[in-house]
Amino acid sequence: MFNKKLGKKLLPFAVVSSLAVGSLAGGNPGVEAKSDNQDQAKIKNVIFLIGDGMGPSYNTAYRSFKDDKSTPYMEKTAFDKYLVGMQETYSWDKEESVTDSAAAATSMAAGIKTYNGAISVDMEKQEVKTVLEEAKENGKATGLVATSQINHATPASFGAHDESRHNYNDIADDYFDEMVNGEHKVDVLLGGGTSYFERADRNLAEDFEKDGFSYVKTKEELLNDDNEQILGLFAPKGMDKAIDRTEDVPSLEEMTDAALDRLSQDKDGFFLMVEGSQIDWAGHDNDAVAAMSEMKDFEQAFERAIEFAKKDKHTLVITTADHSTGGFAMGRDGEYKWDPAPLKAAKRTPDFMASQIADGADVEETLAKYIDLDLTAEEIQGVKDAAATGKTVDIDNAIERIFDLRSGTGWTTGGHTGVDVNVYAYGPQSDKFIGLQDNNETGQKVMELLNNIRKNK
Amino acid sequence: MFNKKLGKKLLPFAVVSSLAVGSLAGGNPGVEAKSDNQDQAKIKNVIFLIGDGMGPSYNTAYRSFKDDKSTPYMEKTAFDKYLVGMQETYSWDKEESVTDSAAAATSMAAGIKTYNGAISVDMEKQEVKTVLEEAKENGKATGLVATSQINHATPASFGAHDESRHNYNDIADDYFDEMVNGEHKVDVLLGGGTSYFERADRNLAEDFEKDGFSYVKTKEELLNDDNEQILGLFAPKGMDKAIDRTEDVPSLEEMTDAALDRLSQDKDGFFLMVEGSQIDWAGHDNDAVAAMSEMKDFEQAFERAIEFAKKDKHTLVITTADHSTGGFAMGRDGEYKWDPAPLKAAKRTPDFMASQIADGADVEETLAKYIDLDLTAEEIQGVKDAAATGKTVDIDNAIERIFDLRSGTGWTTGGHTGVDVNVYAYGPQSDKFIGLQDNNETGQKVMELLNNIRKNK
Repeated sequence: MFNKKLGKKLLPFAVVSSLAVGSLAGGNPGVEAKSDNQDQAKIKNVIFLIGDGMGPSYNTAYRSFKDDKSTPYMEKTAFDKYLVGMQETYSWDKEESVTDSAAAATSMAAGIKTYNGAISVDMEKQEVKTVLEEAKENGKATGLVATSQINHATPASFGAHDESRHNYNDIADDYFDEMVNGEHKVDVLLGGGTSYFERADRNLAEDFEKDGFSYVKTKEELLNDDNEQILGLFAPKGMDKAIDRTEDVPSLEEMTDAALDRLSQDKDGFFLMVEGSQIDWAGHDNDAVAAMSEMKDFEQAFERAIEFAKKDKHTLVITTADHSTGGFAMGRDGEYKWDPAPLKAAKRTPDFMASQIADGADVEETLAKYIDLDLTAEEIQGVKDAAATGKTVDIDNAIERIFDLRSGTGWTTGGHTGVDVNVYAYGPQSDKFIGLQDNNETGQKVMELLNNIRKNK
Repeated sequence: MFNKKLGKKLLPFAVVSSLAVGSLAGGNPGVEAKSDNQDQAKIKNVIFLIGDGMGPSYNTAYRSFKDDKSTPYMEKTAFDKYLVGMQETYSWDKEESVTDSAAAATSMAAGIKTYNGAISVDMEKQEVKTVLEEAKENGKATGLVATSQINHATPASFGAHDESRHNYNDIADDYFDEMVNGEHKVDVLLGGGTSYFERADRNLAEDFEKDGFSYVKTKEELLNDDNEQILGLFAPKGMDKAIDRTEDVPSLEEMTDAALDRLSQDKDGFFLMVEGSQIDWAGHDNDAVAAMSEMKDFEQAFERAIEFAKKDKHTLVITTADHSTGGFAMGRDGEYKWDPAPLKAAKRTPDFMASQIADGADVEETLAKYIDLDLTAEEIQGVKDAAATGKTVDIDNAIERIFDLRSGTGWTTGGHTGVDVNVYAYGPQSDKFIGLQDNNETGQKVMELLNNIRKNK
């Protein structure tokens, strides 16, 4: 395990990379799968990236969103070349057959099916060991990175146990209180959530600082810090959508980078979970602009993870979603089109614009400032009518409707849907994820790989 | 090539199977992919199955539809264990970015991107060779099987060339007139379409018979026939949905079986395309009952193909979709559920019931006869209100609405959507399809495999 001495200087990346050995071919999982390199001891690190709500339509739409229209074939996203299969998402909830993020994350973290809302507890509300805990027991460094509050369902299911995802304070407490072999079980915590960590009843941020963690709240503080253990909280609850973020807030890529810089110092390796949390929130809001914003944020973090793994050669990168959200469809109302151009014309999310209008900003000026399109009188009037109600949600919906109709985006729900989600993998043992797996099988596979590392030590 | 003598007795299957050699491991594509058996000469036959409109939601929903609720984990469909990747579907149409079935089938058949409506012609309307034609040039037997009219877009793109999918008569003519090395290029044609083959201006059915083909129009005639070349047309245009079919109409499985019995007689091997045509038609109609009916029909044909390939050991089975249809979502209106039970309670499609009601049948009696559910007064009244309009489509929509609301099924369009679709593969070289491919790459891969067979002959 780490030396916890404050202010220990991080080694530059190049040094870490030069220590790496091994020769697994990178790139296409087909190529990877055909290699005969099955030596399980070669995995040292696992990076598990979860695009919350990232159903298959999101991946396809984002490819179209990124596409260079001047070339005949569609350019691939960073994810595409690592597609190896798909994952089932259903939970064992007695009321709801479509999963929530807690049950799905529990499946991926603890290898079990459970009820909606469960944070790594089983159907009888008994705690079940997570892959992060297994990694920590093996002496590895561990990290959780998200753009939601860091104690939200997905990261919580890797680093805590609770009968309900709604017990945010208890989950935050778990991150500090639940020790593994006398150590805090998560070394790097980056995301939103100051309101849960700086509470009147308990100041967890101070507790972490007392135990040697840095505590940072801005991008600058994060980038200037060089402590291997860190709590970084950049918003009271969830962070802003990437497209709405201010300069002092880090991107998911920057947080991922900061986590990798720290975790890779551990000679025993590391486990890192990175969540693109708000693809899901965009889906709940039926907001295609925000969905593409969050896909981009997540893709950049994914690219950073792949870049690390390619240099390191002992890192498995597994990337998937917990479920799809919103019934997002590239097509509506009988038209055979999905056109990302209107979405690219947005400089902020409809939520951001709606909030400004609700605060008194002029409708036409606000739309002109943040949408690089010649809106029709009818479109503008639709937003004005909504503004007259005084309800931010109505304004938001009216702006979203402009983007939906222009892009051809359809939605069926403000909740989740049951469709299987894509699975991407890179690195040693990535062939284990080829094909269809149930989400608890994904968790079991990661657990088994970590178990095998321990046995082979 | 075949002996075209009429009435040649087919060898029973067991004899064919006992001739097969080779030892490729079957089952999970992950296992297959890891085998080092890369000898391209081992492929002799290719079975290409296309679920028209079968987007990812259809595959997931059908798994839930088939699930045995008395067991904790969801049972897999016949497709699931062969999942190897996904396929992009966009076309090069200048007006429509979401593909139609013709452009998509042209991509898979001829390895090119083209405009919507194109039947194996390129952007300049020039004919491009298809994988079926390549197979026939190699001396292989060839077949097309569909539940639409057999000259509909998907089968047409494998066996004909036309600037428009709507030139149904010309496409039917192509099947007879376009010869390869002096032979009719398709040996087995099974589906719907009598109205295009028995025309006032030309009787293609008679033409085929004169050239040694059998011509059958019922299931009994099909099963009693033993000619290696056959035209079987079981409806004027498209066949009925599986759940609505009468005894005298074969299932897709029976047609696939009949095709395999014949094609497998050819010592040079065969190419067979099988389309589950009406998954798409169910999607256009936003009919979840019909969608599940057609998924089942397609799955049974797929199982038959896999069974053949497992015995034969020299057959590649590749299965995918051309696009998704309807924006079909397992979830609507904020509810976290998708419940297949109401869909299983239907004994006929809403279309079938609506047609009876439009013809004067009593609403309540008809619903009670064909739906094994206790409908509410409100649900029945909805259909009565629709019946009062006298429009079959309104009655159909009212019945579909009962199933949508009870099952939690959402839709966004009566057209297609752009989402990537699943790819399944089994047999030698199936590892070539692991990962993400563009639909024209899928066609190119099949073409390349057929080319390699020719070179290695």
